[in-house]
Amino acid sequence: MSVYGGVEAGGTKFVCAIGSSPDKLEAEISFPTTTPQETIERTIAFFQEYQQRETLSAIGVGSFGPLDLTPTSPKFGYITATPKLGWANTDIYGRINRALGVPVGFDTDVNAAALGEATWGAAKGLETFVYLTVGTGIGGGGMANGQLLHGLLHPEMGHLRVPHDLDEDPYSGACSFHGDCFEGLAAGPALLGRWRGAAEELPPDHPAWRLEAHYLALGLVNLICTLSPQRIILGGGVMQQATLLPMVRRNVQQLLNGYISVPAILEQIDQYIVPGRLGNRAGVLGAIALAKEMTQGV
Amino acid sequence: MSVYGGVEAGGTKFVCAIGSSPDKLEAEISFPTTTPQETIERTIAFFQEYQQRETLSAIGVGSFGPLDLTPTSPKFGYITATPKLGWANTDIYGRINRALGVPVGFDTDVNAAALGEATWGAAKGLETFVYLTVGTGIGGGGMANGQLLHGLLHPEMGHLRVPHDLDEDPYSGACSFHGDCFEGLAAGPALLGRWRGAAEELPPDHPAWRLEAHYLALGLVNLICTLSPQRIILGGGVMQQATLLPMVRRNVQQLLNGYISVPAILEQIDQYIVPGRLGNRAGVLGAIALAKEMTQGV
Repeated sequence: MSVYGGVEAGGTKFVCAIGSSPDKLEAEISFPTTTPQETIERTIAFFQEYQQRETLSAIGVGSFGPLDLTPTSPKFGYITATPKLGWANTDIYGRINRALGVPVGFDTDVNAAALGEATWGAAKGLETFVYLTVGTGIGGGGMANGQLLHGLLHPEMGHLRVPHDLDEDPYSGACSFHGDCFEGLAAGPALLGRWRGAAEELPPDHPAWRLEAHYLALGLVNLICTLSPQRIILGGGVMQQATLLPMVRRNVQQLLNGYISVPAILEQIDQYIVPGRLGNRAGVLGAIALAKEMTQGV
Repeated sequence: MSVYGGVEAGGTKFVCAIGSSPDKLEAEISFPTTTPQETIERTIAFFQEYQQRETLSAIGVGSFGPLDLTPTSPKFGYITATPKLGWANTDIYGRINRALGVPVGFDTDVNAAALGEATWGAAKGLETFVYLTVGTGIGGGGMANGQLLHGLLHPEMGHLRVPHDLDEDPYSGACSFHGDCFEGLAAGPALLGRWRGAAEELPPDHPAWRLEAHYLALGLVNLICTLSPQRIILGGGVMQQATLLPMVRRNVQQLLNGYISVPAILEQIDQYIVPGRLGNRAGVLGAIALAKEMTQGV
């Protein structure tokens, strides 16, 4: 039985795990994201300790971005132009690969989470789906035709442009690049900026949630019209508010207004827009799934 | 040398051709789209005439939609809920397949055009790209990971929601489902409704084009953020105005504001957002490419 390593490389914390599936994890560790030097060294040390006793077949890394994912690029495997202090131009893939001497699968944190949900969770058996996380930012990944979404770079679903009714919502948006893009209007910092309250402090009947559901639905409609996903999986801290998801579903139906005339949207939207099954484990489990793919030639 | 049939089944006209590539076409015909009965019979008659003398290996059909493209569905190959009079619930795939007795490849008109551009035109060698046509409506297709975009249904890129500044542009939008969606603000009927002039009558320095470029760029930004295409190909009647494309490119750069930091967008956008190479032949040639795929087991 092969054993793999998985790294969820987040902007706030790193999670590393060793195992082969959600119910076969041998070890797990989590530590705050500090400097690249220190954080990557702790990551490597965790796996090296295991390698002194046992064999790791491969490592998967799902990382915050933006990333260079072009296999032929000299900077393949780098975190590139991130605003996160000290992390721009960090060769995370190469350092881990050289130190541990095993194949390394590498993708965005959200594509890793998407792969996790496809392997063991809410996207099992689907060819084309979206995984969207709504927290301190909005990030999206997923698959089209059974493969993770790549292309010129990787999706940046948080930066969709959506209608913004300034009369109803004069808040100017929190995105430092685009102001009132999707993330700028609907991620955690926008809730904080608009309502002066963190998402977890706003009561379920606060008007914040009606507006939040509206913006999230606008973003989802754009994803539906572009990718035609078979399912949309929503995760992240903001989605913890239980009243939100049913409102998002209703808003999506209202915005589409019957145009996409399929039962999945018209009748079974509760199974179409869903929470993840792996919860906040999707990232690190997905990283293990990335590692498995490295050894299976997918 | 195998010979194929291609059908571009448009809402205004049908184009049928016989051949194997852009420079190897043996026959072509075009006729207006009337009733399904009459139009499909003319299509079948054109190919049957050829079959009396020679062998057709397969037929490809790129059709206006919405379509049922789920292989396991009892209505696979139907035009489904179209508002076009008389055409809802039309089994276009099945009728052609039964009458001609050859394999039939079937997809949306825009996916067919995308495949045409991928096979012989501006998307050659690309794995992930978008083909967008801006005319009486806005339709989009393309590929992700080397395969045409499908999923729950097929893309409906015309119905993206984009910001609409009602102070600057009080026009309410032309989409009968969504009012001011992307198509509702930026397709030909919106130009006509907003400026009382058809696209081909508006002079190059008319303010219409500045606003049009803005809306088109908003749509393209949303496609870029979702799919991360390696290239975007623009076609359709509205794009015939030569001043438009350079303005769209500049607007896309301005809207992205350096966030997607890759040379293709920052420096080489003239090769990133491009007109098609097959022009208005993309649809029927793409239908021939669909037919070829049927016999090559792609």
